[in-house]
Amino acid sequence: MEPKLHEDLEPLAFLLGTWRGEGKGAYPTIDPFAYEEEITFTHIGKPWLAYAQRTKHPVKGFPMHAETGYWRPIGADRVEIVLVHPTGISEIQEGSVNSSTVDVATTSVTRTSSAKEVTQLERTFRVDGDLMRYEVRMAAVGLPLQPHLSAELRRVED
Amino acid sequence: MEPKLHEDLEPLAFLLGTWRGEGKGAYPTIDPFAYEEEITFTHIGKPWLAYAQRTKHPVKGFPMHAETGYWRPIGADRVEIVLVHPTGISEIQEGSVNSSTVDVATTSVTRTSSAKEVTQLERTFRVDGDLMRYEVRMAAVGLPLQPHLSAELRRVED
Repeated sequence: MEPKLHEDLEPLAFLLGTWRGEGKGAYPTIDPFAYEEEITFTHIGKPWLAYAQRTKHPVKGFPMHAETGYWRPIGADRVEIVLVHPTGISEIQEGSVNSSTVDVATTSVTRTSSAKEVTQLERTFRVDGDLMRYEVRMAAVGLPLQPHLSAELRRVED
Repeated sequence: MEPKLHEDLEPLAFLLGTWRGEGKGAYPTIDPFAYEEEITFTHIGKPWLAYAQRTKHPVKGFPMHAETGYWRPIGADRVEIVLVHPTGISEIQEGSVNSSTVDVATTSVTRTSSAKEVTQLERTFRVDGDLMRYEVRMAAVGLPLQPHLSAELRRVED
């Protein structure tokens, strides 16, 4: 049985479901790349969303990146996000929720001893009905904050 | 189709599967509590394990805690863990893997603005065949590191 949505979650309810689409990545230190992506936002009746993301190679199909974490609304127009990457990166993100736009920036990026030196990330998500677009800006390996990822996905399940 | 286990993952292969059991928690600032727990360790052919944990009330069945993250072996006897809690806590854990015992301590705990002040965590996992026992020690809200959780689980699926 589907649990009832926690009332605190209503400002983020537009994210719920499974989203699939394509994205592109670039950074001065790597070759540009493309990916297929699936993002899920689920809830269990508690005042937070579980977030999971996976990408794969658009032609060869092998798994590329993954992320997992939680999004927690703070009142009607703020959000706190905690998420981790399998490469040993953890992001604490905070920012605004404005109807269906989420704009967040890391207040802290921490990493394991062997992880790459990522120092700052900003993420913008825009949802228009069943269409989601996001952009990620990243500062890493001594370089300033700059565009890193952009993607467009469609909701395939509520 | 099940992906082939990445060879780097072999030192942590004893964790793979779905585990269910019961645990107990205590801390000077809260009433002692009991919980039912499910832990899953899965892989997708990459050199890391996806870790997910959920607990629920042993009598009333409502969801209690949850965690999600990744475990990455570093050689045969070290592990790096990144994991997050929905309450806005992120742990970077590093430590040792010794046959089927994992002993890790946080090198960093970070948190969102509204999260509780958790400052340090240590985790010990011991696996004997299909039996897993773990202990968690925590420093929080100004108190020193001390026992917080202990649980015993059985592997219910490979």
